[in-house]
Amino acid sequence: MEASEEQNYGVRKLEMSDKAKGFIELLQQLSVCDSVSDKEFQDRFRELTSLGDDHVIAVIEDHVSGKIIATGSVFIEKKFLRNCGKVGHIEDVVVDPSARGKQLGKKIISFLMDHARSMGCYKVILDCSVDNKLFYEKCGFRQKEIQMVRYFV
Amino acid sequence: MEASEEQNYGVRKLEMSDKAKGFIELLQQLSVCDSVSDKEFQDRFRELTSLGDDHVIAVIEDHVSGKIIATGSVFIEKKFLRNCGKVGHIEDVVVDPSARGKQLGKKIISFLMDHARSMGCYKVILDCSVDNKLFYEKCGFRQKEIQMVRYFV
Repeated sequence: MEASEEQNYGVRKLEMSDKAKGFIELLQQLSVCDSVSDKEFQDRFRELTSLGDDHVIAVIEDHVSGKIIATGSVFIEKKFLRNCGKVGHIEDVVVDPSARGKQLGKKIISFLMDHARSMGCYKVILDCSVDNKLFYEKCGFRQKEIQMVRYFV
Repeated sequence: MEASEEQNYGVRKLEMSDKAKGFIELLQQLSVCDSVSDKEFQDRFRELTSLGDDHVIAVIEDHVSGKIIATGSVFIEKKFLRNCGKVGHIEDVVVDPSARGKQLGKKIISFLMDHARSMGCYKVILDCSVDNKLFYEKCGFRQKEIQMVRYFV
């Protein structure tokens, strides 16, 4: 990656104005997500912002197109286990198909891991499909358990 | 289970006084956890209490022995995905071996699921070993993804 491209694809925290830059449309590639109104977005944004460093959403903006092309989040769980330890939970990682091959996923994960480490977490965990296992192994993760889910709706 | 036993094993939220009832020793069966000082316990307890319904720790106390014999926690993650949906994350479920066979694990999970549902979560998720898969299936869960972990310490 050239210096100019490196500069073009810096990771930063989500901003209120990112809704207009396609942030929700990017998430829609990941799971069911109808359109979110400006009001709903602002309310949720403020709720998450009030959690400060305990919940961080990272994004990469393509400064040429002005679109958000990669994102991922981490929230910090506080436990009694592990001597009142903390765990970082990584969620909702997605890179726009048009931007694949630029290591943007790795940049997002690296940003989120650095944040969790700086918050004093003893580990970070995430759930992924078997298809994405190799990617996370390249990011330094290893498989440990299985994820169970129960849907209410 | 007889009515008296049912009454003896009610689920309630963690209280500050539960440290003296063996709460930390119960957690130690689950993972590495050195002794926690009263100060550390109180500080973490207050931090978690400040999160209100967004982080709940359930316990079952044996009113005969005065010991905490089962516990589990759930915290509520707020997303933009799923139309600004919420997800319940269940963590740190453990039943004392001396109290197995009384369906206390199911009672804890049921309490945590009810809480997540009442908070408007569209799903609850948890990570477990393959050995515990059947238990969670009996609680209405199904396997979905795999859990990846990276330790910092």
